Amino acid sequence: MIIEIITVGNELLIGKVVNTNAAWLSLFVVKRGYRVSRIISIGDNEEEIANEIDAALRRKPDIIITVGGLGPTFDDMTSKSVAKGLGVSYEINEEALAIIKSKYQKLGLELTKERVKMAMMPKGATVLKNALGTAPGFLFKTDKTLVVCLPGVPAEMKSIVESYADTLFPVVGELVEYILVASGIPESSAAPLLAKVVNENPFVYVKSHPEHSEGESVLKVHVYAITHDQYVVRLCHDVAKRLKGDLEMLGAQVQGDV
Amino acid sequence: MIIEIITVGNELLIGKVVNTNAAWLSLFVVKRGYRVSRIISIGDNEEEIANEIDAALRRKPDIIITVGGLGPTFDDMTSKSVAKGLGVSYEINEEALAIIKSKYQKLGLELTKERVKMAMMPKGATVLKNALGTAPGFLFKTDKTLVVCLPGVPAEMKSIVESYADTLFPVVGELVEYILVASGIPESSAAPLLAKVVNENPFVYVKSHPEHSEGESVLKVHVYAITHDQYVVRLCHDVAKRLKGDLEMLGAQVQGDV
Repeated sequence: MIIEIITVGNELLIGKVVNTNAAWLSLFVVKRGYRVSRIISIGDNEEEIANEIDAALRRKPDIIITVGGLGPTFDDMTSKSVAKGLGVSYEINEEALAIIKSKYQKLGLELTKERVKMAMMPKGATVLKNALGTAPGFLFKTDKTLVVCLPGVPAEMKSIVESYADTLFPVVGELVEYILVASGIPESSAAPLLAKVVNENPFVYVKSHPEHSEGESVLKVHVYAITHDQYVVRLCHDVAKRLKGDLEMLGAQVQGDV
Repeated sequence: MIIEIITVGNELLIGKVVNTNAAWLSLFVVKRGYRVSRIISIGDNEEEIANEIDAALRRKPDIIITVGGLGPTFDDMTSKSVAKGLGVSYEINEEALAIIKSKYQKLGLELTKERVKMAMMPKGATVLKNALGTAPGFLFKTDKTLVVCLPGVPAEMKSIVESYADTLFPVVGELVEYILVASGIPESSAAPLLAKVVNENPFVYVKSHPEHSEGESVLKVHVYAITHDQYVVRLCHDVAKRLKGDLEMLGAQVQGDV
């Protein structure tokens, strides 16, 4: 099950905001057995967002998630752009409007056109209720792809994902992982070993991260699999165990519970 | 001057690593007058990286920056993929090889094929020396676009960018910015005001970030411009000053030095 994430907002492109939303979302879905194939950040631009949605739909992932741009201001244009990318009309969603009306009534504020805008969605969208904020999220199903649109305020995004987790991302597998920390050998010395293990075990990812420069040599090796198959779960453990032994044979001190 | 950033690494797609490299790089180049149009994260996959380079080149940005995948292990495949995306051959760069030879000689380690791999680059690439690590970066010029490839270890990436800043990203402008923090009014109340100011001042970006939910209402408004034009520098200040006054007229308490 493949997921593409599109994060929207100029603040991401000027380095004012680190994209923690994308990392949180990725980890959340990966732990439920999904694979994130790409994460893109683009600015608050209707044409660019619509083009990105269109391009993503053509790659036919199982799910496209957009984050950001659902609020009341002029620069919040994700809903309109997603409608454009989907090729459907952009109109008031009655369920969303009822939610927004009720929220502003309670606050004693009138229903301005900026507030109504938060109820405008692609025709056929289903509302995702936002318990912590005003702008609802929504989902839209195409034949092949589920499009999920979430607000960018981190607490709101997380709360929607957590409350709708079983609807949006039913568990299809799990993340199995082991982390080995090897000191005493440079990454380039471990390279042939890692390559051999990976070639022999295509279902298991092995990724090495040099944490210092080669002279000092601390190497973090991440062994993981995203799978629903108990065979691969065991394989991942075996690969990690074997790698730990092999790295020790090369002369490394290896930490890691395998 | 438009820049696209491509960050490479499975760790970004499983939420193990937050993409601080992209944020740091964006801020660095924006402060020198560049505009980042998109940031994409993709996995360690030769075909996907090559396709992304090809797609980026077709959009004809001034600069494409890749981050990650220059190391010695099997999963480091950016150089080869970039060569493929550029449509040029992938071969040993003699300058890079000399640097790598000398580093391993000093460490008393032999020159294995994994170490030589770090000297392999697209034909015609120019080496960017890496003072903090072994894998050099490189640049490659096409007719329209400068392609800059950097290692993913943050300290190494930053050190290369800082030492080659004037070559890679000569100053073409500056980031002018003001931050207003308005409390006491919901974002949706400020929305018409922000829209009006933006419509009247196309050179200045205004972006509002609700920091709490609408009930509590703290609104951070970021007013900024990336420009080389002293007129726009003054305009940005004037827009921020006017916005502060207008938000206060709406009943907000506004902090921000304008």
